[in-house]
Amino acid sequence: MNHFHQKHILDMVSLSEQEIDYIINTAITLKDISERPIKKVPTLRGKSIVHFFHEPSTRTRTSFEIAAKRMSADTFSISASTSSMTKGETLLDTVNTLQAMNPDIIVMRHSESGAPHFVSRQLKASVINAGDGMHAHPTQCLLDLMTVREALGKINGLKLSIIGDIFHSRVARSNIVGFTKMGATVTVAAPCTMIPHGIDKLGARVAKTLEDAVSNADVVMALRIQKERQSNFFFPTEREYASFYGLTYERLKSMNKNAFVMHPGPINRGVELSSDIADCPESLIMKQVTNGVAIRMALLYLLMGGTRNAHSN
Amino acid sequence: MNHFHQKHILDMVSLSEQEIDYIINTAITLKDISERPIKKVPTLRGKSIVHFFHEPSTRTRTSFEIAAKRMSADTFSISASTSSMTKGETLLDTVNTLQAMNPDIIVMRHSESGAPHFVSRQLKASVINAGDGMHAHPTQCLLDLMTVREALGKINGLKLSIIGDIFHSRVARSNIVGFTKMGATVTVAAPCTMIPHGIDKLGARVAKTLEDAVSNADVVMALRIQKERQSNFFFPTEREYASFYGLTYERLKSMNKNAFVMHPGPINRGVELSSDIADCPESLIMKQVTNGVAIRMALLYLLMGGTRNAHSN
Amino acid sequence: MNHFHQKHILDMVSLSEQEIDYIINTAITLKDISERPIKKVPTLRGKSIVHFFHEPSTRTRTSFEIAAKRMSADTFSISASTSSMTKGETLLDTVNTLQAMNPDIIVMRHSESGAPHFVSRQLKASVINAGDGMHAHPTQCLLDLMTVREALGKINGLKLSIIGDIFHSRVARSNIVGFTKMGATVTVAAPCTMIPHGIDKLGARVAKTLEDAVSNADVVMALRIQKERQSNFFFPTEREYASFYGLTYERLKSMNKNAFVMHPGPINRGVELSSDIADCPESLIMKQVTNGVAIRMALLYLLMGGTRNAHSN
Repeated sequence: MNHFHQKHILDMVSLSEQEIDYIINTAITLKDISERPIKKVPTLRGKSIVHFFHEPSTRTRTSFEIAAKRMSADTFSISASTSSMTKGETLLDTVNTLQAMNPDIIVMRHSESGAPHFVSRQLKASVINAGDGMHAHPTQCLLDLMTVREALGKINGLKLSIIGDIFHSRVARSNIVGFTKMGATVTVAAPCTMIPHGIDKLGARVAKTLEDAVSNADVVMALRIQKERQSNFFFPTEREYASFYGLTYERLKSMNKNAFVMHPGPINRGVELSSDIADCPESLIMKQVTNGVAIRMALLYLLMGGTRNAHSN
Repeated sequence: MNHFHQKHILDMVSLSEQEIDYIINTAITLKDISERPIKKVPTLRGKSIVHFFHEPSTRTRTSFEIAAKRMSADTFSISASTSSMTKGETLLDTVNTLQAMNPDIIVMRHSESGAPHFVSRQLKASVINAGDGMHAHPTQCLLDLMTVREALGKINGLKLSIIGDIFHSRVARSNIVGFTKMGATVTVAAPCTMIPHGIDKLGARVAKTLEDAVSNADVVMALRIQKERQSNFFFPTEREYASFYGLTYERLKSMNKNAFVMHPGPINRGVELSSDIADCPESLIMKQVTNGVAIRMALLYLLMGGTRNAHSN
Repeated sequence: MNHFHQKHILDMVSLSEQEIDYIINTAITLKDISERPIKKVPTLRGKSIVHFFHEPSTRTRTSFEIAAKRMSADTFSISASTSSMTKGETLLDTVNTLQAMNPDIIVMRHSESGAPHFVSRQLKASVINAGDGMHAHPTQCLLDLMTVREALGKINGLKLSIIGDIFHSRVARSNIVGFTKMGATVTVAAPCTMIPHGIDKLGARVAKTLEDAVSNADVVMALRIQKERQSNFFFPTEREYASFYGLTYERLKSMNKNAFVMHPGPINRGVELSSDIADCPESLIMKQVTNGVAIRMALLYLLMGGTRNAHSN
């Protein structure tokens, strides 16, 4: 039975618990394609997917491109610097122009929160939000949910702690929404300048100390200090940040022997994570990347009308 | 019967009336491919198409890439900033190097007028001019002809008025040549600094006023004010330009109730066009974009030896 | 019988004489694919090849992309400016992230000598060195060997002279190793500031004069003066360089009537080569480019487990 009826993937708020489960189950089915000698199925042959990235990204864009090509879709890449928006065109005219070329899916990253929601209301094509401003990054949340479910067998009842720059992080916001929806408890910890006012309304508990956040967590997720978005308004120096909130293996394991470690990448080694913890056996970081391809394959497949059963036959 | 015997598509002067008709008829046949659930035919499988863009472009480059991939060709993209020409190589050495890799078609945009003509004489591969300096942009003219023929049923006997920066515009030059060749009458209007000396020799009438140009036209085509090429030598301010030559729905329709509106894009809303006219029912702007893909599919197909009948079987 | 058992292609030192012959023989078999109307074989369908270029390159990257697509592989391109390394990520984390997406081959160019060797030890994927710092450029050497063998029928016993900036040149270093391994004698000539200390230990003889280098050579290879790496520490002016070491047809042919001419490109006409010699009948420069695609097809094919005989059936 098909539990997926979305036209767009814009944020975690819009997805039901059943739909999230269905996406993850589909991704688990498709994951195996990337392990085969011939990493390609003809499922999306003749579909046109535009990657419209208005903020630099290699990791997410490459993950989407690999997902698309492994499903045999045709991909087209448009970046901020090359788009006609530099010639004075509005965002809406850019996407309407894309629409006129009949793409099936537009994967979109934009520096403005809500931009993908805005354009999705104008388009016949499906829109996947690949990160909008400080708002949402639903494919990251879905791959994190998949990774936790694979590592711990379930999400319901688990405790996730997110450490770092909650304020600027669309990853944090999407994960708070997604993990609480699936029955997990989410705690955040950071210097108080990096905890946005009202974050508890999304469902997160704010911990007073790092130890409070970490001691009982099943999974500890460190966020990237986005150097390009920082000023010393938020913390005095990277070194001071690292000394109070940077995770080292010794420190984390003294607080909680059982915690798994996650990070959305790219890592600043020595700032939010030391090398010993980035590479420790409890690190799920590389599994997150692998699952990212599978989740994106699942979303492309489901948005194009696929069903889990039809595919596995 | 095959009416197409060109090796290159360099400008509208080189194409006969019969060939233009044949290209448009082929494009109409191929247009439907982009509307199908599976937007791909195997026609150009194993053909190598190089997109060599020596000036920034997303719209035209993406249109060509979509056209190529929907015909199953392999595409390779080379931009000015990444080409070896930044290492001191001449244009001729760059294209000879490309030639040595055995491409079938080189789609070329260049800031120098005549560059595609120059390289076409050196190459075994076919060359499509995707815009050279202020000279020609034949694929834009062909998509404009196709769009007008679809909207009005014919081109012969129609009146086209082109408003704006004629001086810098390769779109204007190609459209004056192409529309007059197909039997239309072309009028241009602009501040006198933007009317190049001798434009009447290409076949265009120069109107004294905007109203003179617009009042009896079947189609009014506004050109983009290319901010990147302007200095205030040409007009004092954008606001002044807009107040004298910017098209608004009310203004245009008071002059001529029946005029269709075109624009090659990207639009500067509020400069050459107001929003109400860009989005009005008589606007053909989005149809131009859609037809752009079809025209480019037709050209790739015909240059590779296709015939209209063979394909429609 | 399969004479190829390498997992990576890192430098010419690692390849045996038998392996080099086997690669060239395979390339000769595959070269014909690029001459066909349908330039594509399904051999590498479903293989994922990442082009990770940490230094600008069009020529080599395009050659690899054409090779990959003619074998039906899927390609993904990552450049220095777009990679997460600009966000503070280490090289190792970047390639580990790539690895987690299950590519089959990573083609890598990097400004640091040894970078491909370093990452090859961490990866499941095969690594092809597309040029690392001043160290090695094995695919260039292989295509040069192939070109000389095609032009002169053999390599063993031939005399190769390399003229120009030996100091900065990974092409020179790889060719000294590769040609001497295959039984040729290699001589270098340049202003003394451009002859690195100890180059004779790689197997090259240092000539005192240009005439000494050229007079008995079977092949004269000019190197590019890499303007971007020069300061006037190495030579006073380009004009002075050209007057002492620039090759003209008259000058070269007065020294040696039989010499073939090579250059890895891109050419600076009038600096290391005059136009009459770049375009002379004895110039193998365009053949080098054509053979570059064939050599890269052969390497991709062999690294993926192909054998020469299996393919030619």
